[in-house]
Amino acid sequence: MAPGGTAALVGMRREFLRDLADHPERAALDADLSRLFRSWFNPGFLSLQRIDWSTSALILERLIQYEAVHQIQGWRDLRRRLERDRCCFAFFHPALADEPLIFIEVALTRGLSSKVQSLLDPDSAVLDPKTANCAVFYSITNCQEGLRGISFGNHLIARVTAQLGHEFPHLRTFATISPLPGFRDWLCGESAAGIRRSAELADFLAAAQGSTPPSPPAHLQRELTAVCAYYLTRARRGKMPFDPVARFHLANGARLERLNWMGDVSSAGLKRAFGFTVNYVYRLGELDRNHDTFARGYRVVVSRQIDRLAQSVAVTGASGRHANER
Amino acid sequence: MAPGGTAALVGMRREFLRDLADHPERAALDADLSRLFRSWFNPGFLSLQRIDWSTSALILERLIQYEAVHQIQGWRDLRRRLERDRCCFAFFHPALADEPLIFIEVALTRGLSSKVQSLLDPDSAVLDPKTANCAVFYSITNCQEGLRGISFGNHLIARVTAQLGHEFPHLRTFATISPLPGFRDWLCGESAAGIRRSAELADFLAAAQGSTPPSPPAHLQRELTAVCAYYLTRARRGKMPFDPVARFHLANGARLERLNWMGDVSSAGLKRAFGFTVNYVYRLGELDRNHDTFARGYRVVVSRQIDRLAQSVAVTGASGRHANER
Amino acid sequence: MAPGGTAALVGMRREFLRDLADHPERAALDADLSRLFRSWFNPGFLSLQRIDWSTSALILERLIQYEAVHQIQGWRDLRRRLERDRCCFAFFHPALADEPLIFIEVALTRGLSSKVQSLLDPDSAVLDPKTANCAVFYSITNCQEGLRGISFGNHLIARVTAQLGHEFPHLRTFATISPLPGFRDWLCGESAAGIRRSAELADFLAAAQGSTPPSPPAHLQRELTAVCAYYLTRARRGKMPFDPVARFHLANGARLERLNWMGDVSSAGLKRAFGFTVNYVYRLGELDRNHDTFARGYRVVVSRQIDRLAQSVAVTGASGRHANER
Amino acid sequence: MAPGGTAALVGMRREFLRDLADHPERAALDADLSRLFRSWFNPGFLSLQRIDWSTSALILERLIQYEAVHQIQGWRDLRRRLERDRCCFAFFHPALADEPLIFIEVALTRGLSSKVQSLLDPDSAVLDPKTANCAVFYSITNCQEGLRGISFGNHLIARVTAQLGHEFPHLRTFATISPLPGFRDWLCGESAAGIRRSAELADFLAAAQGSTPPSPPAHLQRELTAVCAYYLTRARRGKMPFDPVARFHLANGARLERLNWMGDVSSAGLKRAFGFTVNYVYRLGELDRNHDTFARGYRVVVSRQIDRLAQSVAVTGASGRHANER
Repeated sequence: MAPGGTAALVGMRREFLRDLADHPERAALDADLSRLFRSWFNPGFLSLQRIDWSTSALILERLIQYEAVHQIQGWRDLRRRLERDRCCFAFFHPALADEPLIFIEVALTRGLSSKVQSLLDPDSAVLDPKTANCAVFYSITNCQEGLRGISFGNHLIARVTAQLGHEFPHLRTFATISPLPGFRDWLCGESAAGIRRSAELADFLAAAQGSTPPSPPAHLQRELTAVCAYYLTRARRGKMPFDPVARFHLANGARLERLNWMGDVSSAGLKRAFGFTVNYVYRLGELDRNHDTFARGYRVVVSRQIDRLAQSVAVTGASGRHANER
Repeated sequence: MAPGGTAALVGMRREFLRDLADHPERAALDADLSRLFRSWFNPGFLSLQRIDWSTSALILERLIQYEAVHQIQGWRDLRRRLERDRCCFAFFHPALADEPLIFIEVALTRGLSSKVQSLLDPDSAVLDPKTANCAVFYSITNCQEGLRGISFGNHLIARVTAQLGHEFPHLRTFATISPLPGFRDWLCGESAAGIRRSAELADFLAAAQGSTPPSPPAHLQRELTAVCAYYLTRARRGKMPFDPVARFHLANGARLERLNWMGDVSSAGLKRAFGFTVNYVYRLGELDRNHDTFARGYRVVVSRQIDRLAQSVAVTGASGRHANER
Repeated sequence: MAPGGTAALVGMRREFLRDLADHPERAALDADLSRLFRSWFNPGFLSLQRIDWSTSALILERLIQYEAVHQIQGWRDLRRRLERDRCCFAFFHPALADEPLIFIEVALTRGLSSKVQSLLDPDSAVLDPKTANCAVFYSITNCQEGLRGISFGNHLIARVTAQLGHEFPHLRTFATISPLPGFRDWLCGESAAGIRRSAELADFLAAAQGSTPPSPPAHLQRELTAVCAYYLTRARRGKMPFDPVARFHLANGARLERLNWMGDVSSAGLKRAFGFTVNYVYRLGELDRNHDTFARGYRVVVSRQIDRLAQSVAVTGASGRHANER
Repeated sequence: MAPGGTAALVGMRREFLRDLADHPERAALDADLSRLFRSWFNPGFLSLQRIDWSTSALILERLIQYEAVHQIQGWRDLRRRLERDRCCFAFFHPALADEPLIFIEVALTRGLSSKVQSLLDPDSAVLDPKTANCAVFYSITNCQEGLRGISFGNHLIARVTAQLGHEFPHLRTFATISPLPGFRDWLCGESAAGIRRSAELADFLAAAQGSTPPSPPAHLQRELTAVCAYYLTRARRGKMPFDPVARFHLANGARLERLNWMGDVSSAGLKRAFGFTVNYVYRLGELDRNHDTFARGYRVVVSRQIDRLAQSVAVTGASGRHANER
């Protein structure tokens, strides 16, 4: 009821979540707050706002602070991300003025991008957005730690897709260029022990244990890509896909479309996934069907090309059983 | 989640409440909606908006439709209620654009008003608001039948009192001029059977049974006023004061200050309460204390004058017991 | 420079113009103010605003006061004029907040209207605007007497035509339904002395001298219509068309399209023009050409039908010479 | 009339002024544009807007580009200049959206600042503005080269002074900390040839001819300060004070209050005025009187302290005559 009360409660839960693990007795209180927030922050109350260079500096500064996928390197970098061939949208809640809940960054391009670095280059030429045929969602960031577990991303993607389709009728493809945050950990860990691998790959993985792995050599491209396809389509945590980003987009009804070798050669990209990126495609006509397919038994909707690559991987033991669980 | 979803649910409950009595099995669903709305319409989400002659005609037209205490007689009447010496405020919710939830009408006056009709006269002279020392809340209306039971009035009065005090530092008194909706029914009914009454009063009450009671004659003023004071301070429904408007203001921490003979001589005023009105005073410094006093056993905070009048009333039987319950 | 300075100067000229005729020495000052206003109120500074039922009551009330062509009969009448099948637009100037400079009222209809009264009927059914093929400009009013002589109407029509064409792509015809304010005075006056007329018409005109002329009888329809066509196309004041509304629309590049017998049977309509109305059509593709045609020697761009009617009128003496001036 | 027409004309004059000197035949056209702009950009049409961290990045970026007195070193510097103890205001014109015409930067301080560098330090502590007693105007910049000669500064200072006085009733002093752009050139030039100077000063001036003059040594403080006081109060260009900034503030009715040794030790400050700054004080009660004093014969309203210093300077020849012209 008090002015600023909503912000105070969200802040309280943020503090609270930091050491929830040490205080199991607080789980009930967390559940209460979570239920309250799910009601207060229901999607019908959120307003979708376009973020551009005429937006308040106060809010732009927060995007710089919050951006979690591809860090924003100051105002010059931000300005490039808000040019005519880029779009940015955020959800706001009436009781949290000037505080974005979540935001998404989109690049309007000719053809589907495979390389993150060229999208992010602050010196890249600006495209006339009317000539673009593709909208690439290259970053989506939840801003409020205190709202962890309240999901906004699927609504945001749906609203932004509709909005862009209306504004730029020439767009043919709506797709992400996404990280695979769990690939390297999985491949170097126990879960992938049963994946048959060449001596060269084994050598590379052994050498790539450190915190700053090298770029994988070109002669491993075919084998690593196949293993990566296997990872995205067959590796499981429980019954769900192992990769958290895959879980998110597949649950939204997207299709796993393409794997990009050397798609993100930043040190974060190499560390997370040996430089791979993946495109998930959002086709308005098939979202509901794909969502249902995934909801029933977590079956991954995937392009024929990736599926064939995944099938080519030979597995023994435990990893094989994971595959059979499908 | 859907656009317009909140409005649709509020509308659904409005329909629903109309024949809830005939469908007891729907009580659980009503309780669910009620709980949901209590969360969605929590006071922290409401925005206080001033309503004046520069407000959208769409909203002004709704005030004309909704006003429940003193009906608005068209645009000319409304315009007088929005002059410089009148104020109107409403609560809005972000998901219900252009739909007031509740609104209050205030007159800025010199001295505390006792007569509603002179406040409402569309031809009355406009006072320079800087010379006013009193803010009279003369009407407060809940607009959304579908939000029945979700209480906004106390927050609205608190916000408006603070706002007016800030804007017009010369204001000394914040008070209502309120109806007593239950007085006539109580006095003519069984509950008041034990109240000793003169032959003249008994004759008048017998003659005033119809749907359009006459003005009470002047020689009954003293006796009727005393009985009215008794009604407001001692008559009970369960443990609570009998009069619903009294319950509302006393629970907010107001003080029952003054009874006004012939305060509302409209046919509605005569029918409800033989023309009486009452002033409840909101004194910032004593609201919390009064609220607590009332909350503990429903003791009525009342001016000495009204209390003495009430004591002078002789009671026998059941009504007397009510008084002792205090 | 002072706050409210612009409004004060416009008000000063309004007072000033009232008795300018009695004070010829003030003409130079008037010319100065007029030149100043022409600079201050240049079209580039004006903002076009849509007026609808969500507009401030303050501004709507001014429309009621200012409307000069077809008086607005209170809020109910106004509300009908702001329904979905009606549009209203006004120009505002940043230094005159809440004061419209000029406004136009438009009806979206199926087919080109000939009768004003059916357009104005507050109880008429509301048309789905998507099914309309015609936008009828039925009223345009200059609001600021102090800005007399500064012309906004042509810009307003141009902007509104563009805006409506964009918003309702199904509209095929943009036209006015206009009064002929000078027809009756001309026909009953000296200027029309040379127009040959039947005995019946002469009798009617003799009987129609008073301030409330009767409806013309049906058997005069053909003759009166022809004389009216003559009036609009050939009657002159100096080199310009006699009728001021004709001058305005023809100078804007409109085409004189159709004459409507009994188009406005209000007492004002009968008094001005024996009930005639006229449709001027704005065709985007020919506005510039028509404007040039009219600008060179004031030649009237007119439909074949009206032109033939006008030719059929026999003239002797002075009026005939006017016609030859074409 | 055309959209963007005003901006196009202002831009045209900007281009135009660049080589006006080479095209004397264009002077008449420039005079026309200048007269037009004086009418269009009259102060009554300008809107005063507060600039702070919630302002659009588009506008903030323009401040960074335009700031002419103390260059803004990127977004971090700008952010400090928009903290709670700083204020920034700009004039905008309705036809030039997002384009400031002029802006002023103000520091709220305890005591009157003498040193520019401490005001500008992006790492300085932020003061609670309620504890400030002094508003220091430390920068004022005209943004539109195409509006050269149209004066906004005096109106801006008047509006901002009124606004701040209303918002922060504890402010006692409104003053500038201003550069003396002509001091060094004057002192090293012919105009000051008659000023008697010590051998030490003569040596220093001889050594300080280059484009990056050294800080003046401490033992010259008294003599240089006196000469500087003479410069501001007695040095003339025609009948007007020699220094352009002095001319501006004195014509506004300000009082020349204090000279600050080492007030601006940036290379620009040393180059312009050997590090001196000056405080002009705006006292609401004396602005009109001072303005009149200055308007009649350009008499400089000056504090007793500075006046005495100026009197102590011995002069021979031409410079002496200037002094006598007072």
